[in-house]
Amino acid sequence: MLDTGTSLLSAVDLARRIAAKECSAVEVMQSHLERIAQMNPQLNAIVTVDAEGALAAAYAADARQARGEPLGPLHGLPVAHKDTFLTRGMRTTFGSPIYRDFIPDVDSLVVARQRDAGAIAVGKTNVPEFAAGSQTFNTVFGATRNPFDTSKTCGGSSGGAAVALACGMVALADGSDLGGSLRNPANFCNVVGLRPSVGRVPQWPADDPWNTLSVAGPMGRSVADAALLLSVVAGPDARAPLAIAEDGAIFRAPLERDVRGTRVAWSADLGGLPVEPAVRAVLASRRHVFDDMGCIVDEATPDFSGADDAFRVQRGIAFAQAHAELIAQRRADFKDAIVWNTEYGLALTGADVARAQALRGALFARMHDFMERYEILVAPVNQVTPFDVDTSYPTQIDGVAMETYMDWMRSCYLITVTGHPAISVPCGFTPDGLPVGIQLIGRHRGERALLEFAHAFEQANAPSP
Amino acid sequence: MLDTGTSLLSAVDLARRIAAKECSAVEVMQSHLERIAQMNPQLNAIVTVDAEGALAAAYAADARQARGEPLGPLHGLPVAHKDTFLTRGMRTTFGSPIYRDFIPDVDSLVVARQRDAGAIAVGKTNVPEFAAGSQTFNTVFGATRNPFDTSKTCGGSSGGAAVALACGMVALADGSDLGGSLRNPANFCNVVGLRPSVGRVPQWPADDPWNTLSVAGPMGRSVADAALLLSVVAGPDARAPLAIAEDGAIFRAPLERDVRGTRVAWSADLGGLPVEPAVRAVLASRRHVFDDMGCIVDEATPDFSGADDAFRVQRGIAFAQAHAELIAQRRADFKDAIVWNTEYGLALTGADVARAQALRGALFARMHDFMERYEILVAPVNQVTPFDVDTSYPTQIDGVAMETYMDWMRSCYLITVTGHPAISVPCGFTPDGLPVGIQLIGRHRGERALLEFAHAFEQANAPSP
Repeated sequence: MLDTGTSLLSAVDLARRIAAKECSAVEVMQSHLERIAQMNPQLNAIVTVDAEGALAAAYAADARQARGEPLGPLHGLPVAHKDTFLTRGMRTTFGSPIYRDFIPDVDSLVVARQRDAGAIAVGKTNVPEFAAGSQTFNTVFGATRNPFDTSKTCGGSSGGAAVALACGMVALADGSDLGGSLRNPANFCNVVGLRPSVGRVPQWPADDPWNTLSVAGPMGRSVADAALLLSVVAGPDARAPLAIAEDGAIFRAPLERDVRGTRVAWSADLGGLPVEPAVRAVLASRRHVFDDMGCIVDEATPDFSGADDAFRVQRGIAFAQAHAELIAQRRADFKDAIVWNTEYGLALTGADVARAQALRGALFARMHDFMERYEILVAPVNQVTPFDVDTSYPTQIDGVAMETYMDWMRSCYLITVTGHPAISVPCGFTPDGLPVGIQLIGRHRGERALLEFAHAFEQANAPSP
Repeated sequence: MLDTGTSLLSAVDLARRIAAKECSAVEVMQSHLERIAQMNPQLNAIVTVDAEGALAAAYAADARQARGEPLGPLHGLPVAHKDTFLTRGMRTTFGSPIYRDFIPDVDSLVVARQRDAGAIAVGKTNVPEFAAGSQTFNTVFGATRNPFDTSKTCGGSSGGAAVALACGMVALADGSDLGGSLRNPANFCNVVGLRPSVGRVPQWPADDPWNTLSVAGPMGRSVADAALLLSVVAGPDARAPLAIAEDGAIFRAPLERDVRGTRVAWSADLGGLPVEPAVRAVLASRRHVFDDMGCIVDEATPDFSGADDAFRVQRGIAFAQAHAELIAQRRADFKDAIVWNTEYGLALTGADVARAQALRGALFARMHDFMERYEILVAPVNQVTPFDVDTSYPTQIDGVAMETYMDWMRSCYLITVTGHPAISVPCGFTPDGLPVGIQLIGRHRGERALLEFAHAFEQANAPSP
């Protein structure tokens, strides 16, 4: 089944084939829609499907090409948008019953840019309620299941996106990442998810355009595919005050680079985090790949002191800003975790917020110095393998109890607080056949170098033909 | 006295003359040191003077030039640094008795960049205690007086800088601006002060590198001089996570541009702020200049709803972060306003912080839309003329009582909250001979266009020869 039609080709290859008229946008779309029809009912990755609209758009795309009009870099590629991004004329629920029937009259910038680049939206991908937490389930659509074991979670919050990609329902997918929401589902579903630097992918509309914690980013089945999507969604927009000015097109150049001599910091547990033995084993088994690549590998971990505190406070404020008003009106329509986080945020003091800023500032300075010594930090993406889809979150890891529903995401969110870009790349499988990715962290705003390195790792890590 | 030597030439001209060997760095430095000796005792602008070191550096500069070494754009120019910026080996007090004898072992980035560009530091400019408030006095050095009327304040917090510039003690001076600290003293002292966009002038070291409210920037006796200094202090630095990537050199190109047809929003009181009649009168008398320049001038004011609230909260958090720890140890060594602000910040709630973020986010969106319709917003810099040097702050303006020590700075700090760049340019004088500047606000990150426009205004507003 995995070889049906064009739906598991790389997006880069697919775009090339369409542009070269080796296949039509309609053929590609039909192949992907078949895939959705086959696999989505069981997995629940794409929760709003517009097959008719997507097919019509594919016909229009072929017609534009036939007329010789200029083609965007994503011309004819089937994509789906995270259900927290606004899609004009297409239902956008945020995974909340409050927005069950909400149809925006505007596109989020990240959506508009994909459309303008020629991508065709087949629908919306599932998320946890308001993207809170890293397990994709909500009361509107239920859970999204892991294609490698449907009794397991796909992670989240960009969970539907990861599953849709893994199964070839779409060629590319977008997501967002506050505490790991691009990296964790990529990890659990054997695809690539890149958390970029703040401002790399400008967000509009945004409740808090000065926010430096939550970012949007690309997912793909390969590093090159993620880079292709990044090339379209990156680049400045005057409505985003912290947008990085660099043109997104810099990510479209080939990623091949000689990475020999790269100084790599290897951190098996980011300084003593509990890590499930199966995850440790997969990562340990691939450590030699970095040697094979000619890297200079040291065991080293940045000092993450205060990062937990800073993250919880800044996240709490973000929840208070996003949800307090609506919770006051419709508390029963929110899941407990959001209510809890929002109330935690509301009850914080100025002293807490000031302390969080100071801790985060000091962390950035330390991380900067660390990344002057190393070009790449290697770490687990997650401390666990995909867990039971009926479990909200892991309550213990390797014998260590988790206090809150966020604790199991520390290996992701500690990196968030640094502000540095991080990518989850498929690494290997557990004996049970569950995917385990690896987290590669690059220099601040160094997405280009990080993608090149990740691409080299992906090549070196591939099974010999 | 104002015509003595080279000390009142423009920095641009002075740099050109030194480079052309029309005068030596030593001659220039001697002229400025004489000026300091003459005028500083009465005005108290430069509170730490290193005449010997500056002269030695000038001899070294001439020697470098004689050897044909490459010269920086500020080669040989006497400058002074705000006493809140760290200067390696030179006393840095922050205007606080706690740091009365503090000698840093590192330069702030803004200082290092000037040094690297060939500037020579003659000393440190006076500030209010920890730069809090816009009246330059502290218990370490006392008040800095306005050169146009020594019974009046020079404003602040970059007050010593403005006075040193106005009197020709330095060719250029740096400053910083949270609530107006580059614009207000420039206004009160008839010089130019530019508050850049966040990230334009990266700051290091920084307690809060993710801060989006406080910025560093240039001051000069003309717009072109301010642009020259900006060209040196702007540009990315990897230690500043929000730094704008654009090379500072873009500000070194000539500022001449045809500004006819520029859409200008004229706001005499930023939507009903109390403004002293003398300020209103000067601005009204120069409104025709914008017509003379060929601009399309409308009366229009952005909607600043919530900006006061957002500013007070975000400023309170910044104070809490900066001062709480030291106040806990040495409360008696702080002025009341800082203690009050810090305690206010510590006592804020997460709800306050979240609300401030939301208000600021909505303001940015509105300001963006407004500045799509207009390229320049024109407003008063301050609502008052320079007031008595023995008064901490104005308690009423045009019959309206001020509730706190910040209220009189609203015309500056409302602009701060938008994040948009703003420049104070000399405009005219009251019948009493006190200077009144004009505030020109440009598009976010549009410093280049703003400087060009301000330069055109400066030319058009100059008295006919």
